[in-house]
Amino acid sequence: MKKGELTRASIVATALELSARVGLEGLTIGALAERVQMSKSGVFAHFGSREDLQIAVLKAYEQRFVEDVLLPGLKARRGLARLCAIMERWLERTAVEAASGCLWISGATEYDDRPGAVRDELVAMVRSWQRELSRAAQQALEAGDLRCGTQVAEMVFELYGVVLVLHHDTRLLNNPDSLARARRVFHRILAAYAVPGRLEASGCAKTAAPASLPS
Amino acid sequence: MKKGELTRASIVATALELSARVGLEGLTIGALAERVQMSKSGVFAHFGSREDLQIAVLKAYEQRFVEDVLLPGLKARRGLARLCAIMERWLERTAVEAASGCLWISGATEYDDRPGAVRDELVAMVRSWQRELSRAAQQALEAGDLRCGTQVAEMVFELYGVVLVLHHDTRLLNNPDSLARARRVFHRILAAYAVPGRLEASGCAKTAAPASLPS
Repeated sequence: MKKGELTRASIVATALELSARVGLEGLTIGALAERVQMSKSGVFAHFGSREDLQIAVLKAYEQRFVEDVLLPGLKARRGLARLCAIMERWLERTAVEAASGCLWISGATEYDDRPGAVRDELVAMVRSWQRELSRAAQQALEAGDLRCGTQVAEMVFELYGVVLVLHHDTRLLNNPDSLARARRVFHRILAAYAVPGRLEASGCAKTAAPASLPS
Repeated sequence: MKKGELTRASIVATALELSARVGLEGLTIGALAERVQMSKSGVFAHFGSREDLQIAVLKAYEQRFVEDVLLPGLKARRGLARLCAIMERWLERTAVEAASGCLWISGATEYDDRPGAVRDELVAMVRSWQRELSRAAQQALEAGDLRCGTQVAEMVFELYGVVLVLHHDTRLLNNPDSLARARRVFHRILAAYAVPGRLEASGCAKTAAPASLPS
């Protein structure tokens, strides 16, 4: 990277950290400039507008998310094993992130009623992530791991709900057992959709905490 | 009500409407004064501080929520019938509200990192609502509608997730089939926890849309 690119990347990294706490809308060039010890115009020179900065932050967030959650998950075998690996990493990351806040989840309420380029970018990212989850679920269906007739979009909807409530209960309510709870619920969802025996065969059930629901 | 109380109630009602769109933190005395056609100091005279106004708005929100969701639900028989009635109303209200935004859900990201009286009030309300849900689920367990050993807190966690993803997918992604999807998922959750036959006996299954999951 050239020096200008390095500076820009370092500004974006600081902005990412800052906006995890204050939200993308709470991000100001002034606070950011102070953090990176530059002048406001110095920071501004690297971005056309505040909106461009916010979009750059969203993109950096997405890149880390893909590196942390999707790429390691893709190393697992196609099918339930992969879907499970992706979800396990996503749940864990959500619990860790709950300390500072997840940009996509906080962004969902910040931008749901604020049309513009930042919202468009956020919606495209969330949709793209839902597509990745759907692809992993669809492959599990095609591999014969999920019951015939499974509605993949509905399964993804259900799994997304588990992540949202994990974030909500950890972050707002400081509920320390949310991660263990989310893992059990997630495994019950997989078990409900799985062809009998396939969840165990995928190695996914091994990582599950004991289910609270009597079998 | 005295005239002062009437004026205050009408300011709060307008503030509730306004903050559904802009968030509690986006609520300004200026914008509110303009809406109710009063002077800023006139509005201010009814509240000790902006924080007091925000708390008054939260309380008004809770009151409507209780009237719309909890009280009609409590008319249903104790047990699965009541839990189902409460959830049906909550899902419906969430879908309708998604047009403007739910104060508790948007508040969860607005205030998760903003300590103070408004956050404390919000947390107390969400906890109190989770307690009501837990009570309805506990009664269903005691009535023999839910399987022995059901972890009520975990069931409520699961149900909360369905509402959060319904709000998320409707509001951020404009997904029109989220309500039907949320209903199916909710009924599958009840079915997983219910003693066989009890869900049908409660009358709850009748209101369910056909499940997407093959049985």
